[in-house]
Amino acid sequence: MKEKPTFAVIGGGSWATAIVKMLCENLTEVGWYMRSIYAIEHLKKQQHNPNYLSSVEFKTHQLKLTDDINEAVAYADYLIFAIPSAFLYSELKKLNTDLKGKIVFSAIKGIVPETGLIVGEHFNQEYNIPLDNIGVITGPCHAEEVALERLSYLTIASIDEKKATLMASHLESEYIKCKISDDIIGTEYAAMLKNIYSIAAGIAHGLGYGDNFQSVLMSNAIREMKRFIKKVHKMKRNINNSAYLGDLLVTGYSVFSRNRMFGNMIGKGYTVKSAQMEMNMVAEGFYATKSAYVLNESKGARTPIIDAVYNVLYNHKDPSKVFRKLADKLD
Amino acid sequence: MKEKPTFAVIGGGSWATAIVKMLCENLTEVGWYMRSIYAIEHLKKQQHNPNYLSSVEFKTHQLKLTDDINEAVAYADYLIFAIPSAFLYSELKKLNTDLKGKIVFSAIKGIVPETGLIVGEHFNQEYNIPLDNIGVITGPCHAEEVALERLSYLTIASIDEKKATLMASHLESEYIKCKISDDIIGTEYAAMLKNIYSIAAGIAHGLGYGDNFQSVLMSNAIREMKRFIKKVHKMKRNINNSAYLGDLLVTGYSVFSRNRMFGNMIGKGYTVKSAQMEMNMVAEGFYATKSAYVLNESKGARTPIIDAVYNVLYNHKDPSKVFRKLADKLD
Repeated sequence: MKEKPTFAVIGGGSWATAIVKMLCENLTEVGWYMRSIYAIEHLKKQQHNPNYLSSVEFKTHQLKLTDDINEAVAYADYLIFAIPSAFLYSELKKLNTDLKGKIVFSAIKGIVPETGLIVGEHFNQEYNIPLDNIGVITGPCHAEEVALERLSYLTIASIDEKKATLMASHLESEYIKCKISDDIIGTEYAAMLKNIYSIAAGIAHGLGYGDNFQSVLMSNAIREMKRFIKKVHKMKRNINNSAYLGDLLVTGYSVFSRNRMFGNMIGKGYTVKSAQMEMNMVAEGFYATKSAYVLNESKGARTPIIDAVYNVLYNHKDPSKVFRKLADKLD
Repeated sequence: MKEKPTFAVIGGGSWATAIVKMLCENLTEVGWYMRSIYAIEHLKKQQHNPNYLSSVEFKTHQLKLTDDINEAVAYADYLIFAIPSAFLYSELKKLNTDLKGKIVFSAIKGIVPETGLIVGEHFNQEYNIPLDNIGVITGPCHAEEVALERLSYLTIASIDEKKATLMASHLESEYIKCKISDDIIGTEYAAMLKNIYSIAAGIAHGLGYGDNFQSVLMSNAIREMKRFIKKVHKMKRNINNSAYLGDLLVTGYSVFSRNRMFGNMIGKGYTVKSAQMEMNMVAEGFYATKSAYVLNESKGARTPIIDAVYNVLYNHKDPSKVFRKLADKLD
């Protein structure tokens, strides 16, 4: 690897845009792949992403923009994937550049629907990326607050501490602090599970449950998350660290979370399909719910909240009845 | 003790009113002491507390109202204290009725300023109530949501499981679920500490920190609470249970919390005195901060958040500088 490694971000959404902004604080050049040639043209002319975090002004000479994912992959030693998990599979199908030797960081909070794997596992199993070349960038972090340069904390996970430290040093700034972790499996699962709990919080809110219930739900959710992750990958971890509990809270208490909004509509009586159509998108927690439920059939953790959300979303059970039963299982 | 034990609530505020409402679901008669003879007269005529939760209608024939604390104490086997901790000392000075044999439950979230003790300790040390006659009623629970009969969860703590169970059975209803605990020390400290963290959340918000920081603050707060309580009373407890984490969240995320509001004003530049005058009251976390700080000088838990709030409130340090330093200690 070169003395000064190169970085590229894959994705054009708000989280990708926020990460490019962080990298631009530390690097003279950042590779950036986005699908939309229109967005690239706009960025070059107007110095901002037209679709997401448009208040963030970029110095375009710092950006190596491309609408060809292969070009971005060829350019960088460190690749940061920040596209919705639902599009990862199809985006990766465009690759004809070898990922061998690349260090791949996932900034994706979700499961790859086609394989039912979290992103790190997907790269490991489908692309033979060795585990110590895989990393995770996780919050708690709303991209919108990065745009405002409000102090935010990231957790950078990798089995190879050096790679995590290097990535961290390229993201840190006046308004970004990074913590290192070696729990690449647990942090990714936490990031995925919190979307399910966020849907649950939304359903409860939609059904008319209040703040007292919400706090009990979150208190049960973090215990459930601990049981689930322990079954998937047992290691010493403090589930109350920011990457787990903090990430759960920033999403579960956010009225802007798409997952919570989706749940809220379900709680208010929308069908799954009509809520998805109304939102003009699929909340990531929707896929995560199925994957977590199916995975847990073999793992056997006690997961009343995931089960309840699954029953509402996939078995089309009455949310009101399901949550009344769920309430009896919480404490 | 009689076959059917008698219950009385000491206090006229919103939490006292909520607890009387809960008891009225299960008992034919509930003793209720409140200082204000005006409030009692109003209650008798209009069936509701004029000052707090005034939407709650009582069947006044169920209420044994009195403005004499001795009468309430003489009446009941189980006494539930639900007055602000700042007034407990002076209220108890009115007592000429013996507390011997009484079972005393604290529904007070704070420290007795005059003795620096949590309420259970105060009754134990100052009134010789044996520890197994002492209990705690704790949330997470906003009284306002009890008024609306929104599903809420309480934790009832006592060393004597039978007494906790009996108390729980008299509070439970369609909208109240109770969990039993034997951690009378830890649950009281949690209820007190969360007010300090709520002030911290308010200060941060007043200073312009956002939701990302708030989630990191709460994630650090629960770990700090665990360290603190462990030093005070070591026993096996899951700090993520509702009585600890849930109670922290329901307050720390509440925009109605007086402690958070108080902190918010401090963060916005009010002096401690002017914030207190503006609020026309003293937030309980104000006293809790000093007590916790002083207690921890001998215990030595790592408590950067309590220390920061103490420095702002008692050493009149610049909140902006204090929180910038605090931010470096969080992760």
